[in-house]
Amino acid sequence: MKVDIEKQILAANEELAAANRARFDKHGVFVLDLMASPGAGKTSTILATIDALRDRYAIAVIEGDIASKVDAEKIRAHGIPAVQINTGGACHLESAMIGRALDTLDLDELDLVIIENVGNLVCPSDFDLGENAKVMILSVPEGHDKPQKYPNIFQVSEAVILNKYDTLSIFDFDEVQFRSVVESLNGKAPIFPMAATKGDGVHAWAEWLTHRIEMAKEGSSA
Amino acid sequence: MKVDIEKQILAANEELAAANRARFDKHGVFVLDLMASPGAGKTSTILATIDALRDRYAIAVIEGDIASKVDAEKIRAHGIPAVQINTGGACHLESAMIGRALDTLDLDELDLVIIENVGNLVCPSDFDLGENAKVMILSVPEGHDKPQKYPNIFQVSEAVILNKYDTLSIFDFDEVQFRSVVESLNGKAPIFPMAATKGDGVHAWAEWLTHRIEMAKEGSSA
Repeated sequence: MKVDIEKQILAANEELAAANRARFDKHGVFVLDLMASPGAGKTSTILATIDALRDRYAIAVIEGDIASKVDAEKIRAHGIPAVQINTGGACHLESAMIGRALDTLDLDELDLVIIENVGNLVCPSDFDLGENAKVMILSVPEGHDKPQKYPNIFQVSEAVILNKYDTLSIFDFDEVQFRSVVESLNGKAPIFPMAATKGDGVHAWAEWLTHRIEMAKEGSSA
Repeated sequence: MKVDIEKQILAANEELAAANRARFDKHGVFVLDLMASPGAGKTSTILATIDALRDRYAIAVIEGDIASKVDAEKIRAHGIPAVQINTGGACHLESAMIGRALDTLDLDELDLVIIENVGNLVCPSDFDLGENAKVMILSVPEGHDKPQKYPNIFQVSEAVILNKYDTLSIFDFDEVQFRSVVESLNGKAPIFPMAATKGDGVHAWAEWLTHRIEMAKEGSSA
């Protein structure tokens, strides 16, 4: 019975995800769903991505948190429109929440919407939000064994950012083992070492994202 | 309707938590539910706690993970019995899982059972497992703003371990602000700065835990 309820919740979410996706397509907006543990550096990565791409693309951010609006305030202080979603207790964003957030954004004016999901390596991986790509961040202090413990999020991600890479020498992080397990779970996802707060490694990630945005544009105009 | 389902799941869990609690009481076992983000240092903290208390108490560990058995193996390599629970996809442990794990432990021989919950700052805080105390770890690299974003877990915890404290100078972590927000959420929980892998700060934490174990023993014999 519990499985049935889960299936129903996921099916309802799928329907609304399809509606979001149609809306994004119609306006030619590329949407990124960024997932990570609490404190892995989602907001810092978004700020670094904005700095790298703001001259080329019009960007907005949707911030998902259990509570507080500190992340949306950080993004707005950076001169970028941001919508804060507070999920109450829920450990992930759902398509219905994204749909309501979209009502407050002018999609015609935007090229890229970045969704910062709730800090969690479990729940967000199950929920399609209508995004073009899910990408995850793992930070070095979390440890190299996380792909073994949280395989699903690594499997659904189209790229993996390895953040706080500048602290590699401080923590007992086995990068070879990390890369090997990620590859066994998901042979297609590139891994981008990054130190988002310092700007290190942002260029390669921004290039990948630009390529994906342009591919989507070609697809929609074809 | 969704709220009703959540209520039903939580109510079913409460019943089984009461059964676990009765079982712990009967055998005079103190049970700790340890919660944290992925990679905050739950297993390292458990290993340090074992080293501090193993001469005084007989200890066993229940390891909760989505997948893999690496943590149980680490505990067993330390000479301590460990049961691995794999939740499949679930983002937290439930009382039914703990009940099954207890069947494999000789509770008569034990003084302390440490439960390592799934790495997550959201889901585990809602589920009573029948434990004597919930305690959480936040690690310095996660950032000082986490109490604002994940208030519930700070509210239900009877103590907060601030792990990887030796990296305070590397990360932009405002300890004064962190302590102030934790205190506003939960005035009773002591905060224990710790570097579990180095053994720093373990003594104060182990003293608090010892005090709690002894209090529970007095309570059960009264």
